[in-house]
Amino acid sequence: MQEKRLRQLLRDFRQGRLDENAVLESLRRLPFGDLGHTKVDHHRELRQGFPEVILGEGKTVSQVNAIVREMLRLRDNVLITRVSPAMARGIRRRFTKARYNPLARTVTLRSAPVPRQGKGTILIVSAGTSDLPVAEEARETAEMLGNPVETLYDVGVAGIHRLLHFSKRLRSARVIVVVAGMEGALASVVGGLVNKPIIAVPTSVGYGVGQGGFAALVGMLNSCASGVAVVNIDNGFGAACVASLINRL
Amino acid sequence: MQEKRLRQLLRDFRQGRLDENAVLESLRRLPFGDLGHTKVDHHRELRQGFPEVILGEGKTVSQVNAIVREMLRLRDNVLITRVSPAMARGIRRRFTKARYNPLARTVTLRSAPVPRQGKGTILIVSAGTSDLPVAEEARETAEMLGNPVETLYDVGVAGIHRLLHFSKRLRSARVIVVVAGMEGALASVVGGLVNKPIIAVPTSVGYGVGQGGFAALVGMLNSCASGVAVVNIDNGFGAACVASLINRL
Amino acid sequence: MQEKRLRQLLRDFRQGRLDENAVLESLRRLPFGDLGHTKVDHHRELRQGFPEVILGEGKTVSQVNAIVREMLRLRDNVLITRVSPAMARGIRRRFTKARYNPLARTVTLRSAPVPRQGKGTILIVSAGTSDLPVAEEARETAEMLGNPVETLYDVGVAGIHRLLHFSKRLRSARVIVVVAGMEGALASVVGGLVNKPIIAVPTSVGYGVGQGGFAALVGMLNSCASGVAVVNIDNGFGAACVASLINRL
Amino acid sequence: MQEKRLRQLLRDFRQGRLDENAVLESLRRLPFGDLGHTKVDHHRELRQGFPEVILGEGKTVSQVNAIVREMLRLRDNVLITRVSPAMARGIRRRFTKARYNPLARTVTLRSAPVPRQGKGTILIVSAGTSDLPVAEEARETAEMLGNPVETLYDVGVAGIHRLLHFSKRLRSARVIVVVAGMEGALASVVGGLVNKPIIAVPTSVGYGVGQGGFAALVGMLNSCASGVAVVNIDNGFGAACVASLINRL
Amino acid sequence: MQEKRLRQLLRDFRQGRLDENAVLESLRRLPFGDLGHTKVDHHRELRQGFPEVILGEGKTVSQVNAIVREMLRLRDNVLITRVSPAMARGIRRRFTKARYNPLARTVTLRSAPVPRQGKGTILIVSAGTSDLPVAEEARETAEMLGNPVETLYDVGVAGIHRLLHFSKRLRSARVIVVVAGMEGALASVVGGLVNKPIIAVPTSVGYGVGQGGFAALVGMLNSCASGVAVVNIDNGFGAACVASLINRL
Amino acid sequence: MQEKRLRQLLRDFRQGRLDENAVLESLRRLPFGDLGHTKVDHHRELRQGFPEVILGEGKTVSQVNAIVREMLRLRDNVLITRVSPAMARGIRRRFTKARYNPLARTVTLRSAPVPRQGKGTILIVSAGTSDLPVAEEARETAEMLGNPVETLYDVGVAGIHRLLHFSKRLRSARVIVVVAGMEGALASVVGGLVNKPIIAVPTSVGYGVGQGGFAALVGMLNSCASGVAVVNIDNGFGAACVASLINRL
Amino acid sequence: MQEKRLRQLLRDFRQGRLDENAVLESLRRLPFGDLGHTKVDHHRELRQGFPEVILGEGKTVSQVNAIVREMLRLRDNVLITRVSPAMARGIRRRFTKARYNPLARTVTLRSAPVPRQGKGTILIVSAGTSDLPVAEEARETAEMLGNPVETLYDVGVAGIHRLLHFSKRLRSARVIVVVAGMEGALASVVGGLVNKPIIAVPTSVGYGVGQGGFAALVGMLNSCASGVAVVNIDNGFGAACVASLINRL
Amino acid sequence: MQEKRLRQLLRDFRQGRLDENAVLESLRRLPFGDLGHTKVDHHRELRQGFPEVILGEGKTVSQVNAIVREMLRLRDNVLITRVSPAMARGIRRRFTKARYNPLARTVTLRSAPVPRQGKGTILIVSAGTSDLPVAEEARETAEMLGNPVETLYDVGVAGIHRLLHFSKRLRSARVIVVVAGMEGALASVVGGLVNKPIIAVPTSVGYGVGQGGFAALVGMLNSCASGVAVVNIDNGFGAACVASLINRL
Repeated sequence: MQEKRLRQLLRDFRQGRLDENAVLESLRRLPFGDLGHTKVDHHRELRQGFPEVILGEGKTVSQVNAIVREMLRLRDNVLITRVSPAMARGIRRRFTKARYNPLARTVTLRSAPVPRQGKGTILIVSAGTSDLPVAEEARETAEMLGNPVETLYDVGVAGIHRLLHFSKRLRSARVIVVVAGMEGALASVVGGLVNKPIIAVPTSVGYGVGQGGFAALVGMLNSCASGVAVVNIDNGFGAACVASLINRL
Repeated sequence: MQEKRLRQLLRDFRQGRLDENAVLESLRRLPFGDLGHTKVDHHRELRQGFPEVILGEGKTVSQVNAIVREMLRLRDNVLITRVSPAMARGIRRRFTKARYNPLARTVTLRSAPVPRQGKGTILIVSAGTSDLPVAEEARETAEMLGNPVETLYDVGVAGIHRLLHFSKRLRSARVIVVVAGMEGALASVVGGLVNKPIIAVPTSVGYGVGQGGFAALVGMLNSCASGVAVVNIDNGFGAACVASLINRL
Repeated sequence: MQEKRLRQLLRDFRQGRLDENAVLESLRRLPFGDLGHTKVDHHRELRQGFPEVILGEGKTVSQVNAIVREMLRLRDNVLITRVSPAMARGIRRRFTKARYNPLARTVTLRSAPVPRQGKGTILIVSAGTSDLPVAEEARETAEMLGNPVETLYDVGVAGIHRLLHFSKRLRSARVIVVVAGMEGALASVVGGLVNKPIIAVPTSVGYGVGQGGFAALVGMLNSCASGVAVVNIDNGFGAACVASLINRL
Repeated sequence: MQEKRLRQLLRDFRQGRLDENAVLESLRRLPFGDLGHTKVDHHRELRQGFPEVILGEGKTVSQVNAIVREMLRLRDNVLITRVSPAMARGIRRRFTKARYNPLARTVTLRSAPVPRQGKGTILIVSAGTSDLPVAEEARETAEMLGNPVETLYDVGVAGIHRLLHFSKRLRSARVIVVVAGMEGALASVVGGLVNKPIIAVPTSVGYGVGQGGFAALVGMLNSCASGVAVVNIDNGFGAACVASLINRL
Repeated sequence: MQEKRLRQLLRDFRQGRLDENAVLESLRRLPFGDLGHTKVDHHRELRQGFPEVILGEGKTVSQVNAIVREMLRLRDNVLITRVSPAMARGIRRRFTKARYNPLARTVTLRSAPVPRQGKGTILIVSAGTSDLPVAEEARETAEMLGNPVETLYDVGVAGIHRLLHFSKRLRSARVIVVVAGMEGALASVVGGLVNKPIIAVPTSVGYGVGQGGFAALVGMLNSCASGVAVVNIDNGFGAACVASLINRL
Repeated sequence: MQEKRLRQLLRDFRQGRLDENAVLESLRRLPFGDLGHTKVDHHRELRQGFPEVILGEGKTVSQVNAIVREMLRLRDNVLITRVSPAMARGIRRRFTKARYNPLARTVTLRSAPVPRQGKGTILIVSAGTSDLPVAEEARETAEMLGNPVETLYDVGVAGIHRLLHFSKRLRSARVIVVVAGMEGALASVVGGLVNKPIIAVPTSVGYGVGQGGFAALVGMLNSCASGVAVVNIDNGFGAACVASLINRL
Repeated sequence: MQEKRLRQLLRDFRQGRLDENAVLESLRRLPFGDLGHTKVDHHRELRQGFPEVILGEGKTVSQVNAIVREMLRLRDNVLITRVSPAMARGIRRRFTKARYNPLARTVTLRSAPVPRQGKGTILIVSAGTSDLPVAEEARETAEMLGNPVETLYDVGVAGIHRLLHFSKRLRSARVIVVVAGMEGALASVVGGLVNKPIIAVPTSVGYGVGQGGFAALVGMLNSCASGVAVVNIDNGFGAACVASLINRL
Repeated sequence: MQEKRLRQLLRDFRQGRLDENAVLESLRRLPFGDLGHTKVDHHRELRQGFPEVILGEGKTVSQVNAIVREMLRLRDNVLITRVSPAMARGIRRRFTKARYNPLARTVTLRSAPVPRQGKGTILIVSAGTSDLPVAEEARETAEMLGNPVETLYDVGVAGIHRLLHFSKRLRSARVIVVVAGMEGALASVVGGLVNKPIIAVPTSVGYGVGQGGFAALVGMLNSCASGVAVVNIDNGFGAACVASLINRL
């Protein structure tokens, strides 16, 4: 439940616009809305600073739709991640405003503009074309969490001049999310160029001993640049959450 | 080379307090001071926001002393990490102001107060007694980089009440560094309690399949809390660098 | 073969209700009933305290049905684990009393009430929605082995207050089975709160370096709480067996 | 702080044998006694059922002696694990009652008989001579936690007749701790013979791909017997804790 | 090319039953028959003691049929391993004598009785039902290489009495192939009971950290019994080859 | 206890050369001689075909000497493996006949010629100079178990001509033990040249990803030659045991 | 963009055959042609010596066709790797000159003869039939990069005579690419026979602990021959690139 | 034996400067000189293009000195690698011309100028100070094999400008050896800048999950640049051998 809505609720009650029962019903939902299969944690937004996001993977369309309906009772905007094309169709049939980003595998519903919460710009940098799904998941998440976002895609270190060409944009960001598979070297190079926190996301792009993103992960953890912190493989969502918390400071 | 010193140099020159040759000599050292065995990168502070720190491990005492002398030409304060007791004695024999923290294995030299650069407080939280060396390395580093630092040690999750007792301190920090070995669960629990960025440091405290910190590392990367980013095992220095960059925003 | 049935058999023979041949035929089956493809180990119940359970995975429907028929000759109740929906349909077509729990992937047949054998309550605690299949397999197994079972689902450590809210239920159980994926931190936290044996089950919920449940497994084995023992990944059945043996003491 | 002592304290106060200040001083120590380097958790015994045990490894002799002195203020008996011969000498110089078991690497101090808390016997079974240190650590711990303990050593599966010869003893125990290195097969064989909970401890005895106990650990986790739960490699102490919690039921 | 056929060829030539060209044609094929996609190594039988066996996996039906035809030019009997049901149908359509063992996934063609080459009996012992495919592959291979074979299936160590019941059969074999998944303990137990060489085959039956047969493999390599040698996971064919070479001595 | 000695004992008794008490004393030792720290398994020779060998590693000199004395009561010859130079001196001070092979790290005591038990020759082939300790351990063991042994050292595959030069010797052996570190390719090449069973021993000679013998082990398990079975890393003793069992057939 | 075309462009302009606008349009494309989904890097050929090759895997047919069209604007010949049969059909429908090699999974388009750039012959040696796809990918790539290529397939070390038979061809090559799965021993053997650089490609042919090519990779990295360098598993393309750079010297 | 010496030998014989016996003695040594503990392979130089180098590690000083003396009979120059300071002293006591490079841990003996065999320059590039021992081993080896060598040290990617500053030197080399630990990103960046073959050497500089050089190795194998081949961790010698073979083409 957004803090804004909660304040409004209390003011409405004091000024007689809502009776006691209606307020109680809303407040009763505060800790969580129980759908049987899922406990929607409305309280998280107050506690952690951003709302519960729906992980589509492993749920049925009807479960997701029920959660969306429950969330929309108290919030304006909803983000669903790891959404297959089939699930996206099922959601859009029920919620016509829903927008699907097939590359990011995200669905977003916006009933109101997302209030800006980030102080500066989050820049999302990616190494190659195959890293785009993870980069886009990070972008969609960061935007839904109220951040201005810029992207700089396809600037892998095998053609270092492409990256250097954008040094200025690198330096003007407030937080940088670096998304890279293979050997993950991009995080070290970017980390050496700027004095901003870097959140590195290894992607599952890799093969042989680097299969499943392992080379990129261990490379980023051993980065020779000292301002780099790492999230798990393909975790574009998580990187955007950390970057978002930083950008709100 | 600190920006402050550089500006002073230029002003001194313009006002005739320094002749051309002296300025040139200083500027010539700007990119790096070449000691033969090491190229001291004076330029890093301008580029990355914090100065090169000396890694004691793998160097001789005389090498370290030479680097310290070179750094002190242009800077007031110096930090040396991974310093054995024997090396510490060797440094203090030469630089009597040097202070050794045997738990953190750091040596610090302060000729002037470290200028405050962090906007808020960095809180360093650790799980058990064995994690203290890494936590202390993070604390010493964060302080030398100009941050107010608080610590909350020995609050592992096997006695969760100890941690909850300090909820308020957790919430009042601007950035939190969580240091934990074994299963590394502390990062997830802290991450669920606050809405601030968490930099998690797995320590090499663990055994069996968790030997060398492996369990803590994979646990932190799989954290069920969404605001957690991770650095490599025992990298208290690296965690403090990232936390510091965040705290300067 | 249940001990109860065996005693009845012997009494029936002594009192003339069964002739020698009938007893011999029953006893002949005691060590195992040979179905060609499978040797049903009727002896296990006497030796190990609980009956052979049918593992559905890797068998055909007709094989499973044959084993069920063989088991029902000497026992009232049967448990089949790892049953796909298709196999469940095939079993229920033949045994109309069979009940399918699709979440747990178990089929149970009860011709008589399961005799209570556990002295207290087994509490099954799980971290997230994705851990439910394993938790439910543990629940179904524990119930079929004669234990009162309670559950406490969706109380992962990222929202520690949810768990603490149920401290009393945690303390009133006799044995606790903790089911958790990701970093598996729940086992450590629960282990720190109670003075009862904890059987921890890592689940295959995890990704990147924690793929397949690896992070949860190594985390639980490195638990900083000292009353925690671990079974293999996703082994809800095994955890229930150990918990059951404990609860019979 | 033992519950017995706490009750006595309260009665002494009510009956005037202690004044308010003395009681307050004792109660003030209840949550923990702060030694600077260590917070002795006197509260654990009430919460978890057994007292904090001192892990000698990684501490200095004087730290250990300070903790022992602090613990003896409120308790009769103390257990210290992972004690080197040198540390043992240092402890015994200060506490003459201390007894050292060099095989188990434990030191025990008993000022009063350990009150019996276990309902039955814990049987500790080990495979080979090299597994003895871990088995003995388990034995010492289980005894200090108030359990009757029996041992059955050197009964590895390569000479299965030795083990079968002791079937009766296996069956008469209430809980069995199986300690084995190499391939760890002993846990499966014992698990197949009895209907009691088995706590399996892999030891670091192994080589090649089984180096450090890895083969034993993965073998025990994949045990084909269903009543086996596992603790981490060489964790004789942890196995005794779990067995002890079970034996108190 | 079987030595028998080669000798016959030479005798036929000396006695005028074959002209020079026919002999040359046959001898020309001796090193290998080139099918384009495959070089059939007819020479292997002379060099290594048993003929090239066709690995069905990864080949098309028509490729396999071509190789079979080529082999039958010079040999009476053919073995094809890792044959899917669909491939089996395709082979039998072309070679009506072919016999498919769906459990072993082998196809055998016998135009003449396999000449006995093994001096004694090879006994194939397996732990559980899921290990049967590998055990059967070993049996089919050993028989085609001219060995009397006996089997002892479903005698895993969780019910050790079943195995001990057959001690006599274990001791009467000349070589024993032990096939087991999970923790692979059967190899150690059998190795401790007999004084014959044991070839241990880990199977891919296992899960969690033992996934893909890893636990069984490392367990067998760390076997505490000293007469055990190991082949790769699921390599029933390879085990039979080694056992066969031993049995010919 | 050697079968020979046992038969003699019984004959001596029947013919009055020994009284009942003396025989009883000897027979009482038959299952094992209990030294407190070790149970010497005299029965193993009857059961497994070769006597218990003393593993020096992890024992004290006085323990080893006590075991040797116990073994010599019933046997003529004794083998001790993994003996450090210091331990060897301690043994030879007590048993002047003891012979130390520092390369193999073995001590042998021979009071009588080792009776020949192997039917043919065991050939031990090694790849490089660093593999010699393992090869020599295999040689000493095989000789003490009654086998004629030949060696072919320093014939690694990087100079394949050296190996091919000895084809005849390879073909004339009855069993071949191949000892190789690094990539372990020698096993495959030898396996392709002969029709005899190959026991492959990976050695811990390797570095980087092959550290500790890992590359050689996985290479040998994936050998493209089909007559190769493998023992654990550096297990020269184990390889000689298997080879010996084979050579007795 | 090929250097040849660039020179021609400039000459055409100087001699008036092209007007300024046409040249500008061509030059504008020089750094990269932007297709939205892909930035075609025309500049790479000048920088790295060979043109960007299209990786088919993970792209749609229409994306690939668009990239081909863009590349053909400035180049004569195009190579596409990792092409499925379905994608090959889609490409050939649009570009009738395209030739598909289903074994290598490559598509090649040649509008002009590939100019010879390699000074000598690249020899591609492979161990077994299953390694052919990787070997063929290397062959197709090496040819498209302008090298004379020879192949020597199915010469694995289990039949070493086959390889030795071709010693002369091995010695006459300028660079050798060795493609092998299983234990990868072929690289060491070839490396010992010649004095030319060896580029070793492990293939994903392997199983058990060698699954996915791991055994071959670690074997090749631990090769006892000193002239061997390695590329990642199945990377036939990469091996051909390195070999090609060498062959141009 | 150097080809030059061999030709001279033959000419000397034809012209009567040597008698038959002297030639025979020299030729007898051609395949190898047998020192008992070592077979010095004089033939390697003819076969593989460079002479056997002495690996100091694991040998005694007197063994090394014996091998040096044997090699000097037929060669002018000798290289010994992995030499400890103590061994170096021992060698120099015997061979006063020996020169020790303590950083590279190599000893070189030059009685004559090393004949130039490489056509161009080998450039050795390294990332950090800790990588120097491996880089220097590569340099010493490459020089002894007759190559002009240049070095470019301390140009890691965290300060990418340092590397770019030397683009011209990178492009003027004929072969480049890249030596880097940590995440090993330098290989990818250099590989993207030049069109020359890159031999990448991961070093054991790394920690946590990258311990022992693992991160650098997997990173280099997953390099996004296509002209990179890799040798094993810390194998500076091997990299120089491959680079040398390439540079002779």
